[in-house]
Amino acid sequence: MTTYIAPVRDMLFAMKELAGLAEVNALPGYEESSEDLVEAILDEAGKFASDVLAPINAQGDRQGARWADTVVTAADGFKDAYTQFSDNGWHAMPAGTDLGGQGLPTLVSIPVQEMWKSANMAFALCPMLTMGAVEAVAHHGSDELKARYLPNMVAGTWTGTMNLTEPQAGSDLAAVRTKAVPNGDHYLISGTKIFITWGEHDMAENIIHLVLARLPDAPPGVKGISLFVVPKFMVNADGSLGARNDLLCASIEHKMGIHGSPTAVMAFGEKEGAIGYLVGQANRGLEYMFTMMNHARLNVGLEGVAISERAYQQALNYARERVQGKPIGGTPGQPILQHPDVRRMLMNMKSRVEAMRATAYYTAAQIDVAHSHPDDATRLEAQRFVELFTPVVKGWCTEASLEITSTGIQVHGGVGFIEETGACQHMRDARITTIYEGTTGIQANDLIGRKLSRDKGETANALASRIRATADQLTGSGDAALARLGERLNAGVQVFTDTVSWVLAQTNPAVPAAGAVPFLWLTGTVVGAWQMARAAQVASARLAAGDGDASFWKAKQATASFFIEHELPRTLAWQAAIQNGAASVLALEDAQF
Amino acid sequence: MTTYIAPVRDMLFAMKELAGLAEVNALPGYEESSEDLVEAILDEAGKFASDVLAPINAQGDRQGARWADTVVTAADGFKDAYTQFSDNGWHAMPAGTDLGGQGLPTLVSIPVQEMWKSANMAFALCPMLTMGAVEAVAHHGSDELKARYLPNMVAGTWTGTMNLTEPQAGSDLAAVRTKAVPNGDHYLISGTKIFITWGEHDMAENIIHLVLARLPDAPPGVKGISLFVVPKFMVNADGSLGARNDLLCASIEHKMGIHGSPTAVMAFGEKEGAIGYLVGQANRGLEYMFTMMNHARLNVGLEGVAISERAYQQALNYARERVQGKPIGGTPGQPILQHPDVRRMLMNMKSRVEAMRATAYYTAAQIDVAHSHPDDATRLEAQRFVELFTPVVKGWCTEASLEITSTGIQVHGGVGFIEETGACQHMRDARITTIYEGTTGIQANDLIGRKLSRDKGETANALASRIRATADQLTGSGDAALARLGERLNAGVQVFTDTVSWVLAQTNPAVPAAGAVPFLWLTGTVVGAWQMARAAQVASARLAAGDGDASFWKAKQATASFFIEHELPRTLAWQAAIQNGAASVLALEDAQF
Repeated sequence: MTTYIAPVRDMLFAMKELAGLAEVNALPGYEESSEDLVEAILDEAGKFASDVLAPINAQGDRQGARWADTVVTAADGFKDAYTQFSDNGWHAMPAGTDLGGQGLPTLVSIPVQEMWKSANMAFALCPMLTMGAVEAVAHHGSDELKARYLPNMVAGTWTGTMNLTEPQAGSDLAAVRTKAVPNGDHYLISGTKIFITWGEHDMAENIIHLVLARLPDAPPGVKGISLFVVPKFMVNADGSLGARNDLLCASIEHKMGIHGSPTAVMAFGEKEGAIGYLVGQANRGLEYMFTMMNHARLNVGLEGVAISERAYQQALNYARERVQGKPIGGTPGQPILQHPDVRRMLMNMKSRVEAMRATAYYTAAQIDVAHSHPDDATRLEAQRFVELFTPVVKGWCTEASLEITSTGIQVHGGVGFIEETGACQHMRDARITTIYEGTTGIQANDLIGRKLSRDKGETANALASRIRATADQLTGSGDAALARLGERLNAGVQVFTDTVSWVLAQTNPAVPAAGAVPFLWLTGTVVGAWQMARAAQVASARLAAGDGDASFWKAKQATASFFIEHELPRTLAWQAAIQNGAASVLALEDAQF
Repeated sequence: MTTYIAPVRDMLFAMKELAGLAEVNALPGYEESSEDLVEAILDEAGKFASDVLAPINAQGDRQGARWADTVVTAADGFKDAYTQFSDNGWHAMPAGTDLGGQGLPTLVSIPVQEMWKSANMAFALCPMLTMGAVEAVAHHGSDELKARYLPNMVAGTWTGTMNLTEPQAGSDLAAVRTKAVPNGDHYLISGTKIFITWGEHDMAENIIHLVLARLPDAPPGVKGISLFVVPKFMVNADGSLGARNDLLCASIEHKMGIHGSPTAVMAFGEKEGAIGYLVGQANRGLEYMFTMMNHARLNVGLEGVAISERAYQQALNYARERVQGKPIGGTPGQPILQHPDVRRMLMNMKSRVEAMRATAYYTAAQIDVAHSHPDDATRLEAQRFVELFTPVVKGWCTEASLEITSTGIQVHGGVGFIEETGACQHMRDARITTIYEGTTGIQANDLIGRKLSRDKGETANALASRIRATADQLTGSGDAALARLGERLNAGVQVFTDTVSWVLAQTNPAVPAAGAVPFLWLTGTVVGAWQMARAAQVASARLAAGDGDASFWKAKQATASFFIEHELPRTLAWQAAIQNGAASVLALEDAQF
């Protein structure tokens, strides 16, 4: 039985000291959000995560969602937990007040989402997908669609899905073939969608599918795709449920992980055609889908943080209890936490979780600034940061989670490989995060091909300036330890800007594309090092002021040093690979592989 | 359905051009081994691996070995395959002629083992463990023990196990508690052993357990452990099987991978005591066990190579077939193999497999030289290389296999996460390799604490001299591409020697221990780069001579460049972590984690 304790103190540290909670709370529209309220929410959410969601996580993995004759039954305990989750208002919490939610900043809802994902990643996918669907309808749907569907979706009484993928259309949505034929006030949808997360289940009364499909006269490619609302049960004008729509779950997948989350093959329109309602304008479906996709990408990046935190807690608990051998420099009878290499593994996990969390929360704060700041230029700059950071958080935090959850198994030794221990599940669950909502390769191409190129590196250089400012403060701080961190951070940001310049100078697009993923890792690592350097800066100031818990601040100094000494130097390797290694990536003829 | 085609050509390249097959074949005792014979063996073994072992690999994963009331039944097809494997002489092949084997060099048996592991890692564990047990008895057992047990074990009619681990005694075998009480010409063994690979099954007539246990008067710790032969069925003087011994399989584990290989909890002596026979002298059991452990460590390192090769083949096959999007710099309709990032992933997998294979085979050749060379000094030097390389091959190749099998999933995108695709199994199977036969941490402590320190870096520096000699040949070759590789290899070996000097200069043993694992990765990567540089050197010479298949040699140049441009720079990051980051590894108080 594995447990999860929400790291509320670390979360509050990242929110307050690194992401700027006070500034976000002061933005127009967030007047209700105060530090006291935020702390109360995090404490309550942490209890729900520990008490309700974490205990059914292993069961969800072992039993999985079960399919029989188009009906999907969630794993034992999931339906009850979901009912509590909705009834207690957690489902509606992140939504705006106009939709029936609490209207809290993204910076506040993101840590709460992190808790759900840590406690039970498979479960948390259901509300995450629903809120993505809510966002798409809220932004682009007609008033009638909004009135008919959103209240129940926000409350969690009904859940939502994103139906994008088809067998021939995965990363390339231009290849979507599902058809939508006009039929009076609605459309008849037919086609097969795959990889539909929580596409069918028994936890809610209705499921509202958002489906990408083509109209008969649609132009080919991405500009001919429209978005439709396709409910499982028709919804009458009075809000009551009507007939079953012509759609069904043909099967669910056997996956490596997230067994508790049914991944459905959905068959639309096998009889008369599934009734669907156009969202917004025809042929703009992909654009609308990206409204929710960007949000989803940040959320999947956050899954990387969350599952790494869970793996860290699991490994730490084991390392505190297990006694084995005499640690080098220690005494017999001490737990394996005293072994230098176990300590290295745990420091690796802990410092990277902190760096990733800080980066994700910083991005969340930029979303709030971009949304609500009264100054146009400030909003625009924040928006550019959000757009630059989104693929980085998605790609870097998820890729890191593969390494961190694997390290979590390693800390356990032999029992780590035994499923009952629970460490394997985290690694198996994490494995999807670098794939769905756009693979790491897709994120990296977005980063290099769009985010970096479109403004010729302007946002990247603005980021570098912010990082340099921190580094210069540290080197000039008069504190030897901080100065050393500052020097290393300055070296790291130089690697970043040199690589940005190199990327922008290339004329053959295949050449930077060959190093796009290492560039994404490099960017995430430099940004993470920046956040950790800022954490060390705060910690030193608090220590100097004799403010609060010295042990907490000293630990922040130590994890910052670890990240900057162990993780930041990886940028040297990636820079070399990107700049020297493109030709060898592309050197082989097909037959030579 | 996934397939496996033994990479015979690449194997022969590594054997002939890098490991020195001709020199090994010329050693006393290996007169029978010729290039023609070796090629014939590899071709036949490749067929057996593809036709018999690979097709039951997925079934072994899905169904797993099954336990019911102390009886373990292997997955469907395994018993038949095992019978064919033994009947066709593959089981006996690696043994010496004195034992009924073919007396071939280790350099020849290792590629054949690689094939079994690639085709079906779970299956291959059974003969691997048996041959380890054979080795221990052959080296240390009495003539009577040898005569009674070895012929059937070598033939594969009986299988063998290594019973080391107990719940409280994993990495720390000093904690072994299993008891052995003298009783006439034998001992009565009692105790529980866990994690016993193929500890119980239905594939062979008898199972010969090698068990570590303590005599009543044994001194505490590692110097009080003895080794016993404990057969499942007693063996009569005429070789026929007698009564069932007092041992049973209490359960088997539910593991993340290698489901086809039963991992048994073994209960010895629950009634009158299990009859066991002392191997060699009392209290020297651990020393004897290490005879087979070193062999087993090289073999587990080889599992890292093998499972990576299998994952590469699987990913490559998918990348050749799957069409998705327009590759950057390509045209619509081309398979994803044309996407630069997919190409980067496949080059990463391919070049690392080649580097790891070359390093493992080079080590195998050194074993043969250490065993059979007529010159004492040459034998001794080879032995020192074997001892230095064994933890590196074990630790580096297995750690790399975690990354490579994960990359194999990534190449597949969404279908990679679906179990039926087969890519997940390789990652799940690989996950045990960094744990059993000594975790990576154990290997790294062996490397730094014993292999490096005991001769004050003499062997490491001898290795560096060999690498520098290659680098200097390349820089002086007059070929610009080779010269560039030579320069980078020289920089890499400098990183290695600087780090060796730093490690040896430390006075607090916890400080180098904090960087022991990164040092192991660093060492493996520099050695792998050396082998790849040698491959490029050979390839360039052959191309210049117009000798053979130009496409093959050009591919070897490309994978060498890739490894040296993408992998070798990682040594910079590890060096920084080791030399700058020890203090932060050890900085936290326990409560601060």
